[in-house]
Amino acid sequence: MNETVKPRLFRGLRDLLPQQMAARQWIIDTIRGVYELYGFAPLGTPAVEFLDVLSGSAGSDVQSSIFTVGNPDRDKDPGDEALGLRFDLTVPLARVVAQYSELPRPFRRYQVSQVWRADKPGPGRFREFTQFDIDSVGVDSWLADVEIIAAMCDTLSALKVGAYQVRFSSRKVLNLVLKFAQVPEELRVKVRVQTGPDSFDYKSVTRPATDVFRVLDKLDKAGLEKVRRELTRGYTDESGDEIPGLGLAAEQVDRIEKFLSIASPKRAEVLQQLYSTFSGVHGAREEIDAVAGMSEQLTELGYDDDRVVLDLSIARGLAYYTGPVFEARLLDAPQFGSVFGGGRYDELVTRFSGERIPATGASIGVDRLLAALLDLERIDSRKTPAKVLVCSIDSELGREYAAMAFELRRAGIPCELYLGSKGIGKQVKHGDALGIPIVLMYGSDERAKGTVTLKDMAAGRKVSDKLGKREEWIRQRPGQVEVPRDQLVQAVRRMLE
Amino acid sequence: MNETVKPRLFRGLRDLLPQQMAARQWIIDTIRGVYELYGFAPLGTPAVEFLDVLSGSAGSDVQSSIFTVGNPDRDKDPGDEALGLRFDLTVPLARVVAQYSELPRPFRRYQVSQVWRADKPGPGRFREFTQFDIDSVGVDSWLADVEIIAAMCDTLSALKVGAYQVRFSSRKVLNLVLKFAQVPEELRVKVRVQTGPDSFDYKSVTRPATDVFRVLDKLDKAGLEKVRRELTRGYTDESGDEIPGLGLAAEQVDRIEKFLSIASPKRAEVLQQLYSTFSGVHGAREEIDAVAGMSEQLTELGYDDDRVVLDLSIARGLAYYTGPVFEARLLDAPQFGSVFGGGRYDELVTRFSGERIPATGASIGVDRLLAALLDLERIDSRKTPAKVLVCSIDSELGREYAAMAFELRRAGIPCELYLGSKGIGKQVKHGDALGIPIVLMYGSDERAKGTVTLKDMAAGRKVSDKLGKREEWIRQRPGQVEVPRDQLVQAVRRMLE
Repeated sequence: MNETVKPRLFRGLRDLLPQQMAARQWIIDTIRGVYELYGFAPLGTPAVEFLDVLSGSAGSDVQSSIFTVGNPDRDKDPGDEALGLRFDLTVPLARVVAQYSELPRPFRRYQVSQVWRADKPGPGRFREFTQFDIDSVGVDSWLADVEIIAAMCDTLSALKVGAYQVRFSSRKVLNLVLKFAQVPEELRVKVRVQTGPDSFDYKSVTRPATDVFRVLDKLDKAGLEKVRRELTRGYTDESGDEIPGLGLAAEQVDRIEKFLSIASPKRAEVLQQLYSTFSGVHGAREEIDAVAGMSEQLTELGYDDDRVVLDLSIARGLAYYTGPVFEARLLDAPQFGSVFGGGRYDELVTRFSGERIPATGASIGVDRLLAALLDLERIDSRKTPAKVLVCSIDSELGREYAAMAFELRRAGIPCELYLGSKGIGKQVKHGDALGIPIVLMYGSDERAKGTVTLKDMAAGRKVSDKLGKREEWIRQRPGQVEVPRDQLVQAVRRMLE
Repeated sequence: MNETVKPRLFRGLRDLLPQQMAARQWIIDTIRGVYELYGFAPLGTPAVEFLDVLSGSAGSDVQSSIFTVGNPDRDKDPGDEALGLRFDLTVPLARVVAQYSELPRPFRRYQVSQVWRADKPGPGRFREFTQFDIDSVGVDSWLADVEIIAAMCDTLSALKVGAYQVRFSSRKVLNLVLKFAQVPEELRVKVRVQTGPDSFDYKSVTRPATDVFRVLDKLDKAGLEKVRRELTRGYTDESGDEIPGLGLAAEQVDRIEKFLSIASPKRAEVLQQLYSTFSGVHGAREEIDAVAGMSEQLTELGYDDDRVVLDLSIARGLAYYTGPVFEARLLDAPQFGSVFGGGRYDELVTRFSGERIPATGASIGVDRLLAALLDLERIDSRKTPAKVLVCSIDSELGREYAAMAFELRRAGIPCELYLGSKGIGKQVKHGDALGIPIVLMYGSDERAKGTVTLKDMAAGRKVSDKLGKREEWIRQRPGQVEVPRDQLVQAVRRMLE
């Protein structure tokens, strides 16, 4: 015999054993059901793509997150192109839209697939995970964005997550704050540069106005004071690092703060504050009108303030999005953060075809949602689909056991025929450990009488808890019924009701 | 603007557009439904595994089929282990069984996942494809094998593939032929070896007795005469290659041929011929009894000769299997070959734990099945789940369109709200191209009357075919009904019945 190989997984990867897998499957089926009601159609793309398709114009942070894949054709042609595993489902969608002219426009597609990121793993941060995306491609109308928000709500309701909140904002409204605070399109920032082991110098670099948002994104973690200083002259943090300032004047930061203070649990109030704050900003009314239109449409369709909030603090990778942005949180499990997010990105296909195709969509982190629902105990996760375990008491009766199992299956009742070689006590324990609700027992006694014994495991467990001993419980046989053999299916159906 | 990237895929990979993807999803859901009735529970494993886990004891042919994956942790630790993409679902199952002691025994699991093979692609041969596996782990009883065969039949029936045939045999019965023909455990074979550009020599090598099966596997392609010569003295083929012979005597080959001639569409007759042919072989009765037991059990459960055949010619990678082997073919689409195969392999986990754990299972090639069902036109494949397209005729009525779409969705009727900017003719064409059965039209006329117009696209198409012009058809409005606005849902339900 060869040496054995240690069974193990690479860091950041994991198996989903049946209990988690069943819960994941229920989540995916539920999401799929909602998305199909909206007319989204399924798309499948391979996990492996050309590296330039994946990374093309993406930033270097994305590029370093890609798992590379060996190209087997390089044996023959060493110059053949490099491959990688997809890191999201949006890039493959963009490629597909550019590649197949026969696709309808508008194109509504969903895709649920694994994606891979070669980032450092951590608690809840995996290197392979499942995304479930919807996107409407080829639609300018903000009705498409409303539909995405509505679909997010319907999905979370269908998943029975308890209370949730979808927050939305718009990149275009956020851009108004730059006008409002008169931030120039380009900022000159002094950055400290190391010139030797102990020497340094300052260099002036150009930053885009949107860097303001990058700084504002730190509000939660760093607090208002530090953000204020980073927007103006910069500061030196606790570890001695110099944080360069963006060079804004105090009055500019005041105006940004005025914008930041716009908040209300009522969308109509947020809109009113926006109209009044930006009353002097050219073009503001039009952008706010669009958001107001979305809000009214949402109200009309029954998506009210209790679950859809207009929250100007969400930013969601602004470099990427071009219009409305959305994200959703579970109010009973806030520690899981955003489980669902998206927005409008009108430059989707440009990288492949040069054509501008508007698109809007959202992505669910299935694994994070699974973790949250398991944590909330809001999901029925079973170790087996079987509802009945047909025990094997007497090896002479093997064919009768098989006949009973198949009778149940043909009646649509999932059933495990016990095929091991253990005694009846161990068989009942096997069923109990798997959470199978009914155990079927049939021996020479039952055979003589023309009956079958059905054990209701939940009823059995209650008595067992009282007695404290499993052995007693099996002997006492609570929750047990003996039914005529020819009434097996009806009896099981009744017990499962 | 940066240069555009050409949208394209690596050789041997493909996208599944909505129509194929919907069919694939139906296949997977159907198979899952059957497997869950048998009590198989879902398992998920990552696509990326350590290379030694994947390839360990596997032959070099498997090793060269593995797509390698770059290990991102090698940046820090250049000695960190190599990674690859799984090439089947059996190796991950074996790893999981060895890794998690908490799993039940017997363990019934199903897994549907992508697998990757770096082989040369060809028509119908992809480098990424989907397998759907079931396995019963930890069971010696041949009842487990019977269940796999029954599950294969039930699956093919549920998939409505038309006539099919599951063929089974047993590695152990095949081994009897070696005894019967008195083939020694080791064969000495003379092989020609190239010693220089124009010189060669002969070398004697040892081959296992099971090499006989490797040769017998060529029967279909090479024919009896060539197989006979390869089993005896060898021959030179058309291209001048020397095919070495296994060195058997003519009488030995006669006995093998006698075995090969055992065939009948009736399992009982095959068994009878086996009993009489091997009557003098020690231990034969026991092995044949086991197969006879399987056959009787199958008959008792309703799996008769019309769909389950005992066929001694199937070999199915004998190096791997240790007991019964099975495969299934679609009789209406024989060109797709075996779409479903498996067998008993009792050395599953040995490589990881040193422990012998018996197991039996089967694997469906989902892509091959999909291709066959699409070819047979036996699968309902739609480009969208939407049953209704709500057209946008008058932009003033946008909110009413949205309200109607959401009303239908909330009634469980999948619906696309048209969000593009094309005219009504193009919108109807969009719905027609997607195969949406009902188009909803609502303009100022309908609004004034409090009605909605529903167009039955199938009825429309019939008339259109007659008229030969789509324009005519739209003008004529056949298959069109006008219903009260408040009866929208009921009317759509009636039309979809």
